[in-house]
Amino acid sequence: MAGWGGFFVSLLNYKTEKYVIAENRKIGILFRLYQLAVLGYIIGWVFVVKKGYQEREEAIQTSVITKLKGVTLTNSSETGLHLWSSEDYVIPPNGEQVFFVVTNYIETPNQRLEFCAESYKVPDGRCQSDDDCPAGEAVIAGNGIKTGVCLNSTGTCEIHAWCPVEYSKRPTEPLLNEAENFTIYIKNFIRFPKFEFSKSNVLETSNDSYLKKCSFDRNYNPYCPIFRLGDLVSWTGNDFQEMATKGGSVGILIEWDCDLDKDASLCKPEYSFTRLDVNVNNSVTSGYNFRYARYYKNESGESYRDLYKVYGIRFDIMINGKVVVISATFTHRAVPEFKTRC
Amino acid sequence: MAGWGGFFVSLLNYKTEKYVIAENRKIGILFRLYQLAVLGYIIGWVFVVKKGYQEREEAIQTSVITKLKGVTLTNSSETGLHLWSSEDYVIPPNGEQVFFVVTNYIETPNQRLEFCAESYKVPDGRCQSDDDCPAGEAVIAGNGIKTGVCLNSTGTCEIHAWCPVEYSKRPTEPLLNEAENFTIYIKNFIRFPKFEFSKSNVLETSNDSYLKKCSFDRNYNPYCPIFRLGDLVSWTGNDFQEMATKGGSVGILIEWDCDLDKDASLCKPEYSFTRLDVNVNNSVTSGYNFRYARYYKNESGESYRDLYKVYGIRFDIMINGKVVVISATFTHRAVPEFKTRC
Amino acid sequence: MAGWGGFFVSLLNYKTEKYVIAENRKIGILFRLYQLAVLGYIIGWVFVVKKGYQEREEAIQTSVITKLKGVTLTNSSETGLHLWSSEDYVIPPNGEQVFFVVTNYIETPNQRLEFCAESYKVPDGRCQSDDDCPAGEAVIAGNGIKTGVCLNSTGTCEIHAWCPVEYSKRPTEPLLNEAENFTIYIKNFIRFPKFEFSKSNVLETSNDSYLKKCSFDRNYNPYCPIFRLGDLVSWTGNDFQEMATKGGSVGILIEWDCDLDKDASLCKPEYSFTRLDVNVNNSVTSGYNFRYARYYKNESGESYRDLYKVYGIRFDIMINGKVVVISATFTHRAVPEFKTRC
Repeated sequence: MAGWGGFFVSLLNYKTEKYVIAENRKIGILFRLYQLAVLGYIIGWVFVVKKGYQEREEAIQTSVITKLKGVTLTNSSETGLHLWSSEDYVIPPNGEQVFFVVTNYIETPNQRLEFCAESYKVPDGRCQSDDDCPAGEAVIAGNGIKTGVCLNSTGTCEIHAWCPVEYSKRPTEPLLNEAENFTIYIKNFIRFPKFEFSKSNVLETSNDSYLKKCSFDRNYNPYCPIFRLGDLVSWTGNDFQEMATKGGSVGILIEWDCDLDKDASLCKPEYSFTRLDVNVNNSVTSGYNFRYARYYKNESGESYRDLYKVYGIRFDIMINGKVVVISATFTHRAVPEFKTRC
Repeated sequence: MAGWGGFFVSLLNYKTEKYVIAENRKIGILFRLYQLAVLGYIIGWVFVVKKGYQEREEAIQTSVITKLKGVTLTNSSETGLHLWSSEDYVIPPNGEQVFFVVTNYIETPNQRLEFCAESYKVPDGRCQSDDDCPAGEAVIAGNGIKTGVCLNSTGTCEIHAWCPVEYSKRPTEPLLNEAENFTIYIKNFIRFPKFEFSKSNVLETSNDSYLKKCSFDRNYNPYCPIFRLGDLVSWTGNDFQEMATKGGSVGILIEWDCDLDKDASLCKPEYSFTRLDVNVNNSVTSGYNFRYARYYKNESGESYRDLYKVYGIRFDIMINGKVVVISATFTHRAVPEFKTRC
Repeated sequence: MAGWGGFFVSLLNYKTEKYVIAENRKIGILFRLYQLAVLGYIIGWVFVVKKGYQEREEAIQTSVITKLKGVTLTNSSETGLHLWSSEDYVIPPNGEQVFFVVTNYIETPNQRLEFCAESYKVPDGRCQSDDDCPAGEAVIAGNGIKTGVCLNSTGTCEIHAWCPVEYSKRPTEPLLNEAENFTIYIKNFIRFPKFEFSKSNVLETSNDSYLKKCSFDRNYNPYCPIFRLGDLVSWTGNDFQEMATKGGSVGILIEWDCDLDKDASLCKPEYSFTRLDVNVNNSVTSGYNFRYARYYKNESGESYRDLYKVYGIRFDIMINGKVVVISATFTHRAVPEFKTRC
């Protein structure tokens, strides 16, 4: 039986562990109780509590449409009356998931492409003599191109720019302080393509007149999708008027956690609100602002423009969602206790 | 051997199961067949079918550029001729991944900041007497600021607003009904940084003249990245003219499922199309619209504007991608059968 | 003991393997060494190197604010002087995460809605006789609506369009070649809601004057959030002037990999830069451009417009982040070596 022959024969041997069977009832009962505990754990924890038999689906398709309502009249001594309606104060105006609401601004009307003095606030624009203003060079972080002349009256270079340059003092109170009462209507659709399930945050029971009057309230009106701007900001723990002065960034999180084994009407959105532009020590940040211009031409075809530096709040609507449903097969679930036979 | 000494000595004992070796050839053959079956399962299912040895990489970087083509002339009795080209009907115009195409609109030209009657459609603007119109208060969900006067002629408050206020009846047929024939060119680049692999949905073989004439068709032209708007909407199961009247939201999903062990030319995009703004019972939703304004100034520097309420279709291009490739080491793969020695 | 009775009694038997205890010290030492190795692996690899006891949290909330600085004067023979400041060359201007910077353009000023010849570059606009120009039909991929007349002078159909049509030759050098020196200031806030941890990429130590002068450099200024456009493009391995001529797409990836067990000041952003619009063979792509128009009205209320075809670079800021922290319980960690008792 030695050599190769013996090896091949030994391949056909069957090797198994020797077992002892103890016919002791106490040990036997303990052993079965242990097995019952394991089984109970699997059924109780994995199946009932964790719903391990359900299939999770997180591939969600969402669509968000936003609409703001509200008008306000501002009256600044420099530039006169302005009526702000949503087509003006929402940027971009096209009902996006991320949008900016103007709450404060500096207007510089009727700028023309001419020659004037750079602002003294721009370090690179200050000068002692013409040598500090090389012609053709752009002012770093400034408003125009140096002409080679230093203006003694202002102590800054003369520049080729849209003149006059912006008067850069931000109002200490938000000019659109009534933006607090503007409302956002958020229409959110979700779709789980795998289950052909779709839903909207606007309840079907809601009639049009309800939607024209209601206002979201976590306790009394949790399914009204209309939010006061002032409420949104206060729910993040901030003061609206303070945030409106310098600007900021707010996140609106909508969470959908749907169990399709229950009624679809129980699949409802949960809203939460946070300020996004906060540092680790919650120190005040420098706000949020940007500039835009409106261009005009006079009869002779010459261009001029109104420049707006706007401060405001950016809202970012974030959607999270998952759906669970009974899966047809249990086989692809990992139930580790079943694997260890020992 | 009792006490600590005995314990330390016993630490050096080696405990193992007792084995029985059965020299029965039938059982032996059965046992080896069972082992072969397990091995066959591992090789056949895990390696060949599931490709368990491949590395999956889902961190994808994408870039989408869109360009719309098509012009149409609208002629409404109130506001005359309008030529709509892509710089007008695509909002925003800058070739984004998410964009809106105007298909219907209400124009209110030449509004001036004056005093006029609020629209009767706004509930808060209706009045019986001047007491219903407190001066300085904004009309809720309205167009302006109340002046304190109730106008008997209209039964609404006088307001300080952009006048005249919008004539709010939506055309029952889409004014840009020819938008059905507009085309979208979608250029999509993907990059898997880990594998230094990148690809575009515009095939390299495509010459320029092909791209100027082709139109996507799942069967005949699957690699032409140019889509007719009418086709896109009909593939979601909706009627273009109906959707164009009130507006809606369409998702274009591009899926890349690339096996880098095969030729890169086999890594191709798969397109699918869905309507995103659908409720669970597929009831008709209220559409998609927003307003924007174009500002002008007359010779005396007074501002006036054209207000547009536009209805249309928002397209949202969503990219999914994964890539698989042979991994150098098999060790970090979970092959559970190897773990259970018993 | 046969039948059901015997079966139930046998349920209470306890079956276990028979063990052999070998009191051989050499084998015993080998066996314990093997166990020590396994333990060492678990502690050394799983706990120390992989930090298997830490909880990973990847649900990150981010906010990005961008601001561009720089001005340049362009002088084209056709359209005269233009001053480009950030409110003009950044599209959209509102400090978004994804934005486009104009680096080259074709201007078609003072277009009016009239009748003129279609461009010869549009294949569908060419004609031999009036029959090639059916009235009322839009020119495919063209600029207007055919009037039914074929113009012999140009060999193209007469169209109802914004006239004159665009002169479609792109400048071979970027008109805004100084865009290379424009700077982007990126303010990025991250928040891990589960741990109430938030941080910004602008270091708290940074004083205002540092932020007005510094420029990002991977070695010398890694925490200055201000980037020269020219540097950004060169770090992707591309030439700025070449990319500026035709346009392109650049990704800026900010990665946060924070270990909250260490000091929060060690949680710092890592920047990386890639070109997104590259094909598999790195062939030159067709660039990035789009059109927009500025509308004006003359004294008689007639509309005219300036059309801009702009070429430029789209920047897409992508944020990735994960945070690790010591978890209170080890139980839900998978440490496979502990499972196999055999």
